Amino acid sequence: MERLYLYDTTLRDGQQTQGVQFSTAEKGRIAGMLDELGVDYVEGGWPGANPTDSAFFETASAMRAVMTAFGMTKRSGRSAENDEVLGAVLNARTPAVCLVGKAHVFHVRTALGITLEENLDNISRSIAHVVAQGREALFDAEHFFDGWEADADYAFDCLRAALDAGARWIVLCDTNGGVLPARIGAICAEVIARGIPGDHLGIHAHDDTGNAAACSLAAIDAGVRQIQGTLNGLGERCGNANLTTLIPTLLLKEPYRSRYEIGVGAQALTQITRMSRSLDDILNRVPRRSAPYVGASAFAHKAGLHASAILKDPSTYEHVTPEDVGNARIIPMSNQAGQSNLLRRLGEMGLQAHKGDPALESILEDVKAREERGYSYDTAQASFELVARAHLGMLPRFFDIKRYRVSIERRKNKYDRMVSLSEAVVVVKIGAQKVLSVSESLDASGSDRGPVNALAKALAKDLGPYQKHIDDLRLVDFKVRITQGGTEAVTRVVIDSEDGAGRRWSTVGVSANIVDASFEALLDAINWKLIRDEAVPV
Amino acid sequence: MERLYLYDTTLRDGQQTQGVQFSTAEKGRIAGMLDELGVDYVEGGWPGANPTDSAFFETASAMRAVMTAFGMTKRSGRSAENDEVLGAVLNARTPAVCLVGKAHVFHVRTALGITLEENLDNISRSIAHVVAQGREALFDAEHFFDGWEADADYAFDCLRAALDAGARWIVLCDTNGGVLPARIGAICAEVIARGIPGDHLGIHAHDDTGNAAACSLAAIDAGVRQIQGTLNGLGERCGNANLTTLIPTLLLKEPYRSRYEIGVGAQALTQITRMSRSLDDILNRVPRRSAPYVGASAFAHKAGLHASAILKDPSTYEHVTPEDVGNARIIPMSNQAGQSNLLRRLGEMGLQAHKGDPALESILEDVKAREERGYSYDTAQASFELVARAHLGMLPRFFDIKRYRVSIERRKNKYDRMVSLSEAVVVVKIGAQKVLSVSESLDASGSDRGPVNALAKALAKDLGPYQKHIDDLRLVDFKVRITQGGTEAVTRVVIDSEDGAGRRWSTVGVSANIVDASFEALLDAINWKLIRDEAVPV
Repeated sequence: MERLYLYDTTLRDGQQTQGVQFSTAEKGRIAGMLDELGVDYVEGGWPGANPTDSAFFETASAMRAVMTAFGMTKRSGRSAENDEVLGAVLNARTPAVCLVGKAHVFHVRTALGITLEENLDNISRSIAHVVAQGREALFDAEHFFDGWEADADYAFDCLRAALDAGARWIVLCDTNGGVLPARIGAICAEVIARGIPGDHLGIHAHDDTGNAAACSLAAIDAGVRQIQGTLNGLGERCGNANLTTLIPTLLLKEPYRSRYEIGVGAQALTQITRMSRSLDDILNRVPRRSAPYVGASAFAHKAGLHASAILKDPSTYEHVTPEDVGNARIIPMSNQAGQSNLLRRLGEMGLQAHKGDPALESILEDVKAREERGYSYDTAQASFELVARAHLGMLPRFFDIKRYRVSIERRKNKYDRMVSLSEAVVVVKIGAQKVLSVSESLDASGSDRGPVNALAKALAKDLGPYQKHIDDLRLVDFKVRITQGGTEAVTRVVIDSEDGAGRRWSTVGVSANIVDASFEALLDAINWKLIRDEAVPV
Repeated sequence: MERLYLYDTTLRDGQQTQGVQFSTAEKGRIAGMLDELGVDYVEGGWPGANPTDSAFFETASAMRAVMTAFGMTKRSGRSAENDEVLGAVLNARTPAVCLVGKAHVFHVRTALGITLEENLDNISRSIAHVVAQGREALFDAEHFFDGWEADADYAFDCLRAALDAGARWIVLCDTNGGVLPARIGAICAEVIARGIPGDHLGIHAHDDTGNAAACSLAAIDAGVRQIQGTLNGLGERCGNANLTTLIPTLLLKEPYRSRYEIGVGAQALTQITRMSRSLDDILNRVPRRSAPYVGASAFAHKAGLHASAILKDPSTYEHVTPEDVGNARIIPMSNQAGQSNLLRRLGEMGLQAHKGDPALESILEDVKAREERGYSYDTAQASFELVARAHLGMLPRFFDIKRYRVSIERRKNKYDRMVSLSEAVVVVKIGAQKVLSVSESLDASGSDRGPVNALAKALAKDLGPYQKHIDDLRLVDFKVRITQGGTEAVTRVVIDSEDGAGRRWSTVGVSANIVDASFEALLDAINWKLIRDEAVPV
């Protein structure tokens, strides 16, 4: 089997994503994740161009992957040794250095304003300098494909200059992201035919036409052996080639599966869904449900005909097994597959029931009636479980909410500034004991976090014997939708929660009153957690 | 130029997206949008399988696109005439009917449990029945590509049976979404070589490997002439081929641009970003920033080197022009391009300003700072106008909110049922007069409508001299998103309002406190309406 090399640029190109700015510590966590996954190269940033990047290289710990610093070829009019921008890159002391340079006549002339020969000389001398320092050198040929269309001979000369100067890899970049897969494949094949060996070539694709994955595969098919990309497809504009998509394809799909070997093994592959979610978590981005392989919907079968066939044999509607990528199959309730689907779902939740149990019919009816009132159980699986448990007589009663009151006030404070404050009182009955808790909405910094926050804090303040189970409960997302329940518009709140063990679950609440709806979802989240932790009702 | 046909299945396959459930009215709005865009076929749903779908076909208005009903081939053991499922599909009286049938030996034998010959007969008789009714018939060959790998002869026989029975189109479906582009292209070419003309073939791709766009292009390259997909790539699991990606590629990129013609023209293409956002708006989904062509980040140039080159010549880092798809370039706010863009937007609102006015710079800075705190002015144009007016000294001060207080209580009523009630007090200063209004959240039927409703009613109760202007103000939609503002999650509320004159406008409020955010959007809505009505400040 031939070896393909994965080059990750999440920490460099991924940082060009609108709204993304990594801290040094975050870079460290992501690098660790990439190393665990098994990519071959981790591009850490551009030392000297950005204080965070410089700090990251100073603190980066030893890893299996080849740590790579990014920079640019030396400027004209000075030697590689005297170019302080290049010097800063080399000072990061990484085993590999990747230098971007122009490979497009138009950019050489207008952006750099130098002659074509000067540019070739800059490439050649910069790469030679990196090699002379005992580092592995990579040349990142910017705008290569567009440059090829403009002047193929010159674009090729740039690659040749880098190779002759000792570059281990020549990376063909579709910088603007507009070249389509068939053309990428054809140009890569021509480059190889003209004499750059494929095992010295890399592909760097962007998703501006939604084809970054296909462009990368087309390059591999043509003989290119290094693939660049980012986790979750982060990157400038529409993002880079998504390694969380490409890695499963290379490992699971033919012809790649039989033909090539990569640094990621089957075991690491089962961690890729978790890693994808962790990255979103670090960046506080909502994970894309429809993401290939790792999205929450990637194995969700909503169509009635699909769902019933999946129950017989998952291969009927799945091209790979969700467990192979650490993901899970979802059969939402909103289909007609009925009792057998329900039985299976209950089984997955650890709830035993048998065909013909009248509770099954009443669960389906209740869910249907609730969906008519505005509930949605597609995502809120934990709330669904609670509904099912109630009908099966398997819902422990941990506590009762007797009443609550929330007040929100906005007025001028003593400094004549308008400020808001919410205050919540919750009265809970636990066994024979009545507990009255109060909380306000201010966080540690004194900022108002609103009525739902005050209510959540009051509720979580003293749940007596259950307190230890909810101390590690964290709300990670909160979604609100105005929907139609019966004849009136109602608010649907979906809360995603997480605990210290890494469990993640979703609950739903519905009401015309948004605070009520939030409270209902919150109560479901707590009850589900107590059940999972096998808390004993008082 | 050869004609390619676009077949949209947003209303059918798109409805299989987890969390998506269209109402009849929403289906109508989306169908209108698709027709305006210029797709050739609109697949409206499966009449008889779903009450919303049946209702949609009953109420659908006349359109240029061919309205298509979806269904399945007749079952064994009865004639096409006596199959009531097929009968319900035909009863929708659409000019075209698309029937899904099996094309994979495994599925015929195990899912249907019938012989291969019976399946061919079902396809043939069902299509013939549709044709006999004077409709255009399409055959949707489910699992075609996987079926081809299992038994190419049988898969082909299924297509042949449909074609011989009079099907106008034979749609090759990669139902499980796992076939890669190169294989899609090769199989399509073989199908054509075996005798099904390419101008009778369609491609239906899914995005399970992130290759739906590339698979569709590979099929076109092989000679297939109908492309199926959905707006924003909605659909089961990872979604269908995204028409908002494919349409710009077909119209703007070579070789498609010169070689093919589609029903979408250059003018309609400039509406595609707006349509993409409208669909997300209807579904209350957060638009994907990184979506090709239509995403808010698709033309955002964050890297410093890119941004400065873009200022000299946009083609340096853009593969197409954002205006061609109705999108906009995003570059750092503090430059010339930002100002002329702003001047144009102000002009559209009837606000005169001149180049170089220092207010322009301060508007741009303020908007940027607000967007960092979680505001979004993409849709909330009325709130944007108020921000601009404040900087231009053109914002009348109609009234001041001195303070407000809302309380929400949930407890048992005298019948021992849990009930909620909200109560709001608002203190407004109009000129020299202070007005204190109170309202509760119960509607005419005695149902609680929540704290925002109570607050809105209290505010609108007595605005003195302005009262006549707000009596016809109506909130028509209320959207809530949890977003990132600075380092904390905040709530963004967007309110759509309407008045008696049929004006419709959107305003935005942001706060960690959802009631505050709603109140801010509400105040903007009232102030904008007073300005439009030319109310005179007291």
